[in-house]
Amino acid sequence: MSDIRTLTFDEIEALATKALIASNVSAQNASAVARSIAAAERDGQAIVGLSYLPTYCDHAACGKVDGHARPRLETLSAAVLRVDAGTGFAHPAIALGLHPLTEVARQCGIAALSVGNSYACGSLGYFVEELAGQGLVALMTANASPSIAPFGGKTPFFGTNPLAFGVPREGREPLVVDQSSSVVAKVAVIDAYNRGAALPDGWAIDANGVPTNDAAAAMEGSLLPIGGYKGFGLALMVDILAAGLTRSHWSFEASSFGDCEGGPPRTGQMIIALDPKLFAGADFSARLEEMLGAAQETPAVRLPGDRRLEARKKHREGISVPAAVVETVERYAREGSPKLPKQ
Amino acid sequence: MSDIRTLTFDEIEALATKALIASNVSAQNASAVARSIAAAERDGQAIVGLSYLPTYCDHAACGKVDGHARPRLETLSAAVLRVDAGTGFAHPAIALGLHPLTEVARQCGIAALSVGNSYACGSLGYFVEELAGQGLVALMTANASPSIAPFGGKTPFFGTNPLAFGVPREGREPLVVDQSSSVVAKVAVIDAYNRGAALPDGWAIDANGVPTNDAAAAMEGSLLPIGGYKGFGLALMVDILAAGLTRSHWSFEASSFGDCEGGPPRTGQMIIALDPKLFAGADFSARLEEMLGAAQETPAVRLPGDRRLEARKKHREGISVPAAVVETVERYAREGSPKLPKQ
Repeated sequence: MSDIRTLTFDEIEALATKALIASNVSAQNASAVARSIAAAERDGQAIVGLSYLPTYCDHAACGKVDGHARPRLETLSAAVLRVDAGTGFAHPAIALGLHPLTEVARQCGIAALSVGNSYACGSLGYFVEELAGQGLVALMTANASPSIAPFGGKTPFFGTNPLAFGVPREGREPLVVDQSSSVVAKVAVIDAYNRGAALPDGWAIDANGVPTNDAAAAMEGSLLPIGGYKGFGLALMVDILAAGLTRSHWSFEASSFGDCEGGPPRTGQMIIALDPKLFAGADFSARLEEMLGAAQETPAVRLPGDRRLEARKKHREGISVPAAVVETVERYAREGSPKLPKQ
Repeated sequence: MSDIRTLTFDEIEALATKALIASNVSAQNASAVARSIAAAERDGQAIVGLSYLPTYCDHAACGKVDGHARPRLETLSAAVLRVDAGTGFAHPAIALGLHPLTEVARQCGIAALSVGNSYACGSLGYFVEELAGQGLVALMTANASPSIAPFGGKTPFFGTNPLAFGVPREGREPLVVDQSSSVVAKVAVIDAYNRGAALPDGWAIDANGVPTNDAAAAMEGSLLPIGGYKGFGLALMVDILAAGLTRSHWSFEASSFGDCEGGPPRTGQMIIALDPKLFAGADFSARLEEMLGAAQETPAVRLPGDRRLEARKKHREGISVPAAVVETVERYAREGSPKLPKQ
């Protein structure tokens, strides 16, 4: 039997939906999360795809995330919207605000969507790409449970605190930048640990602040921010935008995204959308293509997101997933998470 | 005779104003630039202080920047303002928009100030700190003449493209993050070159893309972005916000900030201001202090901007500047820039 199974986007989405529903998630919430899981697999981001889904299911089953939460949208001002995720999944909460955000951004030229009391949102690129697909420039931040030590410190304090940026392109898929404030995302360390692989230099320090290549020691220690104090500065900025301004837990107060302890993490997301037509007129797209074209004059140059678009193209006929991963999710789809209370 | 001269903030401001006016800058424009020069010296950022002023004067004298430009403010929408700097200095252009921006941000909760057709603005922290002093959270980007190669490339394409972030603090000076997308700002390489000092590892590559410690070779080559492709992603984001959305030259189109060739660089700045009271309610400040206090539990931890605040404190009684630097500026104040056309 093959170690690889090939599935369509729709099959992955359906399977993920089933596994979530079986793990105590409402159909509507399951659907929003499952779509992002299928998109991650399609875009070659397996690390936040099907292999990550059991964590979502376990967290719904143990109550770390409320699978039946109904996010509530409020209007704070002419240009600011807020969604309270109610300790539910981030995906349906963001989905609820995304369409109103596009309308307000077109009216005001700039607008913000604050999502508070929320949970891990997976790939930020997924959301900014949707806004860029609507013709808007989008900036998004999310905070997370602690994994980066402050500059000069040893103990995790900020989350990997990613920043994403989406820009519409004429007749092409949007340009998407999506990067954590740490050298790598925490899921990459967990992935190395699960595979028994050593970490490259410069990824992490152990609990004593000493650089380490050992994934287990890194999980006890801290991830390193990109560029030393500069990555720390970014993580701090992201925490203030994504948690401070969304009335959510700071990273240092958030329970772990990785286990069932400590109740809901109550982290947050902030999305700012700008209308490039208002700012820069109708020739924004043509000017952007001039710049991106010039950047790529050297064939070796890669734009952010290039690998994602290549994976997406490759996966048009089917998405290959390790059979063991599919089987695990199929078991969740049949039986629900093992963390569900016994009947 | 001492190698050091000690001046007050006001003396530096007055001297810088005189040197600019003598170099073909209007009194009003000179005053806005001179204030930022004095603030840089006060804050221990000598690299964009008096020693940088002769470049401003030379550029006004040779026409790279129009010292008599009168920036124009327009309202693009309920939440978006634009200033056309008219190839004049960035400081008076930003100053013109800053107060209206605070009003619009308080009305709408979020607002943007686009400054186009502009010039180098020195320290971004200077401007976001002013907004934070008005109770707003501020995010600012600026693009610059090329110094960073694209990821995979060898030739400078993006500017050092800094990003700054200012946050109000209750009863204290604002929190300010201000950092370039490159490992160091270009002025630091020029400074090393002028001092005949070797560059540390990891700052730059030469014209062939090979890592170098030679400041002269680095000036022919490229600065390295922070965290490899992540700094490149940031520089790209900054270029789109600060140039693309402000109808300015992309970094790759901008003439050098370092010499008199190629006419005005026509770069841009983008400032986004958010009202934390609207987003997060009255307890935003108290919550922020909880987080910043927790971050500093380890005595070795330094927050971004700490060094600036220490320098500011130290300089309350007087600011020490190398005598040679003061003498050069005094010569400019007497005679104007040597680049002025002969009478």
